[in-house]
Amino acid sequence: MEGIKFINGGVCAPQGFVANGIHCGIRKNKSDLDLALISCEKECDTAAVYTQNLVCGAPITVTKNNIKNGKARAIICNSGIANTCNADGVEKAQKTCDIVAKELGIDSTDVVIASTGVIGVPLDIEPIKNGVGELVNGLNFDGSDKAARAIMTTDTRKKEVAVEFYIGDKLCKIGAISKGSGMIHPNMATMLSFITTDVNISPEALSMALNDAISDSFNMLSVDGDTSTNDTVCIMASGLAENLRLVSRGEYFDIFLDALKQCCIYLAREMARDGEGATKLIECTVTGAKDEQIAKQIAKSVICSSLVKTAMFGADANWGRILCAIGYSGSDVDISKVDVSFVSDAGIIQVCKNGAGIEFSEELAKKVLLCDSIEICVTLHDGDSTATAFGCDLTYDYVKINGDYRT
Amino acid sequence: MEGIKFINGGVCAPQGFVANGIHCGIRKNKSDLDLALISCEKECDTAAVYTQNLVCGAPITVTKNNIKNGKARAIICNSGIANTCNADGVEKAQKTCDIVAKELGIDSTDVVIASTGVIGVPLDIEPIKNGVGELVNGLNFDGSDKAARAIMTTDTRKKEVAVEFYIGDKLCKIGAISKGSGMIHPNMATMLSFITTDVNISPEALSMALNDAISDSFNMLSVDGDTSTNDTVCIMASGLAENLRLVSRGEYFDIFLDALKQCCIYLAREMARDGEGATKLIECTVTGAKDEQIAKQIAKSVICSSLVKTAMFGADANWGRILCAIGYSGSDVDISKVDVSFVSDAGIIQVCKNGAGIEFSEELAKKVLLCDSIEICVTLHDGDSTATAFGCDLTYDYVKINGDYRT
Repeated sequence: MEGIKFINGGVCAPQGFVANGIHCGIRKNKSDLDLALISCEKECDTAAVYTQNLVCGAPITVTKNNIKNGKARAIICNSGIANTCNADGVEKAQKTCDIVAKELGIDSTDVVIASTGVIGVPLDIEPIKNGVGELVNGLNFDGSDKAARAIMTTDTRKKEVAVEFYIGDKLCKIGAISKGSGMIHPNMATMLSFITTDVNISPEALSMALNDAISDSFNMLSVDGDTSTNDTVCIMASGLAENLRLVSRGEYFDIFLDALKQCCIYLAREMARDGEGATKLIECTVTGAKDEQIAKQIAKSVICSSLVKTAMFGADANWGRILCAIGYSGSDVDISKVDVSFVSDAGIIQVCKNGAGIEFSEELAKKVLLCDSIEICVTLHDGDSTATAFGCDLTYDYVKINGDYRT
Repeated sequence: MEGIKFINGGVCAPQGFVANGIHCGIRKNKSDLDLALISCEKECDTAAVYTQNLVCGAPITVTKNNIKNGKARAIICNSGIANTCNADGVEKAQKTCDIVAKELGIDSTDVVIASTGVIGVPLDIEPIKNGVGELVNGLNFDGSDKAARAIMTTDTRKKEVAVEFYIGDKLCKIGAISKGSGMIHPNMATMLSFITTDVNISPEALSMALNDAISDSFNMLSVDGDTSTNDTVCIMASGLAENLRLVSRGEYFDIFLDALKQCCIYLAREMARDGEGATKLIECTVTGAKDEQIAKQIAKSVICSSLVKTAMFGADANWGRILCAIGYSGSDVDISKVDVSFVSDAGIIQVCKNGAGIEFSEELAKKVLLCDSIEICVTLHDGDSTATAFGCDLTYDYVKINGDYRT
């Protein structure tokens, strides 16, 4: 993290980008913004990663096609309706791009499109058509906040981040917004995240960096084990920082990658913390693994266990469930060497050594687990690899939110 | 199911078996039975299947050793403490077998042992030592009920079944008890189930039949996605029905297998219906699959989805979540050919055709989904294979039960 500084401005922090968010009428409640736009003054090198779900939102089909040349100038996103599993979804997504492009005076194939919300309900594009004037007129350098709010669904707060750093003597910036907060699970996990940067970088190098950054952040995030149909992470690079163009791995690429990774990890944490119904951020850090694959598999298995999640909700140091989740993770580990501790602002407490329980203060354990950010530390004593997964507790409110989402 | 008749008597229905259950003091509440015993008047051919979790309860280690000759005479099981992840667990499980064997006047290696409850808390065997006299003295032909109740943990009701059928001119019986109801997930999924039969069958044939029966029943069952550390399904065959000994596949073997499968499916359904906090039995039947593997994978994916489970709790016909779960199941399917319907006692309603939503009566859908037993029917139009998975809804009470299980 050396030389990386967190700053304000979100997606508008990097040079060249403006944004806006409005309520156009797709969502019922007038105070819920439902249409976001991010736009750049010039054509950007662009890369994206999508859901691995076979059921794939119509917007993804259109976006894939539009950025196959590695170029884009704007991102349009609505919340409320996912535009997925409808007969005419692709047509409507295409039409939306046309409407936005016309208003911006750009080419329709330079528009990235995304939708999030209920699956299977037809998208009415009239509200978009009617709202696009206001949306484009309102584009400004402070617009990241509104854009971040307009892509929220069950999120309780916006997710936004920006950083600055140097590549050589050039000051560079990355900004990002994202939304959760259910249907989030590893493997092009995620949700929606839109990232901007003014770094000068080729689409190929951008794609490499994005995939690397995602594998340690969004793909290590699980809220409920369901991989959504519309997940998209898209990054646009304006090049206005005027650094020597990054075209392959190397020292400068690594600086950019590190900054990008910090942004993505920040957002992954925020999304976990704001998981549907969550009261706590739960991180599982696995150390001493034979290889990174094993470390990741175990960290994710622990984070995904409903029994671990409910125990964390109840501030119950039920470490047996953690061992159980390690045991069914599919990784070849020697359980008799496993140590487990809980860490939070209230302290650190070891509860399991060499695969068996040890005496510990239930009182201190309770204190540690009552904090709103908890780290489950698993040590395998089997090598040097490490990984962290991000999740949250499973609560009454998760059930409430998802028991009547449509109604 | 031709020729198979459901009867009373549970594990004591087959000839040669007696059972009992008592409160010995492992569980706090005196009205909670916590020690079960099933015993046969003669040595039985015996087979078992265990959890695939690497964290494996001490009782499993001892049982595996005791029945490696394919023989057993008794099953002892306590609830309350899982005797797992403790330094001296195997020793204590061994000691328990010794105590029970001595009281029964049999060999210690003829005892199958199982434990269920909290992981990581040391098992105190004093209560077992003190209670074993009462337990053995009380063994009787009506004891299945008490044994079934003594293996319960968070179950709200006992699970017990028995059937009779003919092999040639010999009347044969199978009886079984089982317990759920959390930490239940496919792949030697399950929980505990103890099965008795008076069929004359070799241990090898018994093992084949048990594995076949499990693959369509307990391994298609998921309550919360967590595979327990102590799962055991054990079957003992007394041979007292005096049929021609079954030693390999064939007509008579198939009759036995069919009866065994019916018992296991009955219990799997009961366990799903009584899943922790469940208000509803949810079955997903996949038809028209290219092969059975795909049918099973998809049925399980739907049943395991937290979003589907909460929607069912809320009686919300949110079929998009079902398509989503099909999409991330890992099976290669053509989503554009998928149909989805809901079926219950209140009627049948189709909600998705060719992978897209169709108009349907929300009112009827609500009625159908308000029933306490719901079938989600998925048709792939891609072949002739079919499979059914068993699960339940995800409710406030699941969170409540598991948020403070230890305390």
